[in-house]
Amino acid sequence: MTSRDNGIGIVKAARARFEAPFALASGGTLPGFELVYETYGKLNAAKNNAILICHALSGHHHVAGHYADNPKNVGWWDNMIGPGRPIDTDRFFVVGVNNLGGCHGSTGPSSINPATGKPWGADFPVVTVTDWVSAQALLADRLGIAQWAATVGGSLGGMQAMQWTMQFPERVRHALVIAAAPNLTAENIAFNEVARQAILTDAEYKAGRRPVTGLRLARMLGHITYLSDDQMAEKFGRKRRPGSGSYGFGVEFEVESYLNYQGDKFAEWFDADTYLRMTKALDYFDPAAETGGNLQAALARAKARFLVVSFSTDWRFSPQRSREIVDALVHNGQDVAYAEIKSVHGHDSFLMQDAHYHAIMRAYLDGVLP
Amino acid sequence: MTSRDNGIGIVKAARARFEAPFALASGGTLPGFELVYETYGKLNAAKNNAILICHALSGHHHVAGHYADNPKNVGWWDNMIGPGRPIDTDRFFVVGVNNLGGCHGSTGPSSINPATGKPWGADFPVVTVTDWVSAQALLADRLGIAQWAATVGGSLGGMQAMQWTMQFPERVRHALVIAAAPNLTAENIAFNEVARQAILTDAEYKAGRRPVTGLRLARMLGHITYLSDDQMAEKFGRKRRPGSGSYGFGVEFEVESYLNYQGDKFAEWFDADTYLRMTKALDYFDPAAETGGNLQAALARAKARFLVVSFSTDWRFSPQRSREIVDALVHNGQDVAYAEIKSVHGHDSFLMQDAHYHAIMRAYLDGVLP
Repeated sequence: MTSRDNGIGIVKAARARFEAPFALASGGTLPGFELVYETYGKLNAAKNNAILICHALSGHHHVAGHYADNPKNVGWWDNMIGPGRPIDTDRFFVVGVNNLGGCHGSTGPSSINPATGKPWGADFPVVTVTDWVSAQALLADRLGIAQWAATVGGSLGGMQAMQWTMQFPERVRHALVIAAAPNLTAENIAFNEVARQAILTDAEYKAGRRPVTGLRLARMLGHITYLSDDQMAEKFGRKRRPGSGSYGFGVEFEVESYLNYQGDKFAEWFDADTYLRMTKALDYFDPAAETGGNLQAALARAKARFLVVSFSTDWRFSPQRSREIVDALVHNGQDVAYAEIKSVHGHDSFLMQDAHYHAIMRAYLDGVLP
Repeated sequence: MTSRDNGIGIVKAARARFEAPFALASGGTLPGFELVYETYGKLNAAKNNAILICHALSGHHHVAGHYADNPKNVGWWDNMIGPGRPIDTDRFFVVGVNNLGGCHGSTGPSSINPATGKPWGADFPVVTVTDWVSAQALLADRLGIAQWAATVGGSLGGMQAMQWTMQFPERVRHALVIAAAPNLTAENIAFNEVARQAILTDAEYKAGRRPVTGLRLARMLGHITYLSDDQMAEKFGRKRRPGSGSYGFGVEFEVESYLNYQGDKFAEWFDADTYLRMTKALDYFDPAAETGGNLQAALARAKARFLVVSFSTDWRFSPQRSREIVDALVHNGQDVAYAEIKSVHGHDSFLMQDAHYHAIMRAYLDGVLP
């Protein structure tokens, strides 16, 4: 059972080009675009076993498996997806896609703007969760998928999974909305704004160069909100780095070392203009805004069944925020299952291999195929 | 009763110079130093009615009243201190002092280094809570105060109030430790480190100039941790600025406006090298480190009585952290009163005029004079 033990194995990315002008929520129009994506498993004859995986802020289309020329580059949700795994590629046809505006191959700030022949950079339009869902729908058309068995995502990905049910009610049978929220709180927006200001006020960014300093600050701050206070206490506490100096401003506490490392690593490769747009997409997401702040009314359009999952120590999108979604669905008489998983990993829990969490995902998906 | 309604009225700052070399916890030595301070009320004949107010990160010696030439410059704790106020200047002699390393007149990074004839800047040594208490003790000597009726402070100021009881047990009768903690958690240190990195990696700072960008980021981040999630939700929610644009990166949500304003205001005047040192003093504070992590053993030295106050929505130094101090004192059989105040204002609650909080401070201080 090597393939089961090792996951899905070698995978390949594919590209889809859409030539037609693409209208954006901002009022702007993209002159065509490309999406990079991966698929795992086989689309069945009835074409009713397709699952869309939506990614979060720094995610992408490479969700599971690894590349032939780079075995260490394993997909970001490999523990969840593969033969015999909770999202079982023996049964489902799984699609991962890099969102519009991303920096992993889909059309985004680093792509060439056909109007100028130069990279879009800061001129790339702001994109929203609804834009992403519209673009994903074009990809579904291209792949011959009229209806997803399920849309699935954690965090910002969960917002997309939920948005699908309202934007294309006929095209989603199930939505798995994990570690998400019906919108961002003022505190959530505040953290995003500090991260954006770190980038926007970086002199390098203003000069049109890579704002390494701003990106690393944004990422350091992000990591604080992804972890839980308890987990940080357990993992780092007040421990010092062996051999670190003292009474200076170098890295001294273990937690400083962790954050600086994460910031440095991220700033090496992530695109600042993508980061800015991902955080704005988060800030703008608010389906209830169209129904006078009434989430129940917004979700009433949905025909999908829902699994909503939250994590006890997630303070970025707390269980309370997931329960708002659940409450709205329950009051509408819609079909929803809810699980609040005990986990020490904070917001990052949705990426972790947790037996209870995975068992719930598996059990729910067992009932998804007709 | 005009003076009661208007508080203490006009106050003046004073300076004290200490010529002797001053040994620091870091192993370094300061070649003498100055402290700027204010006093309110009168030291009685028995000299047993003096209260020391210790300040937090961005505080200073101007604790109450206003200056003759600037009536709008009201002290940062004016609602607490004055004739008939909880810290009653009709009864107590109140001393406010700007800490060593500060940027409000006491010797600090912007002072002249006698060895070079130029401002210390980044060469100013790192100072600790114990250094501050040692310096405050020299000021007490100068003012003829052998023993404080009480040392009082919120946040980092509360740490100093507590440190006094361990460092000079005979010199403190009461310690009022408000919105404080026995040390910083990994998450607390993490926030400080992001703020420090914002300053340290600012190209202006590296070039020896004022890092306005880094300081404003540090302050924006700080403000998120001073407020509570609930309060931000109530105060800002998802409200937009009237007339603000959309689908861009300008200020759009009210919470963004608030943070940018606070950041801009702070960056205009606060000294970056002071900010770096204040956060390090917080990170290093850990009296239990000297007793193998045993806070109870560390506090056993204290002869003071304690009032410990925490606030329900303070997530920077949560009530749980205050209860660690209380538990240690209780287990030692030491005299401690504890109040957990219901407040929506998060960590900033200690600065707010809250009837329950002020009543407790007043009631406790009623029993402080022999």
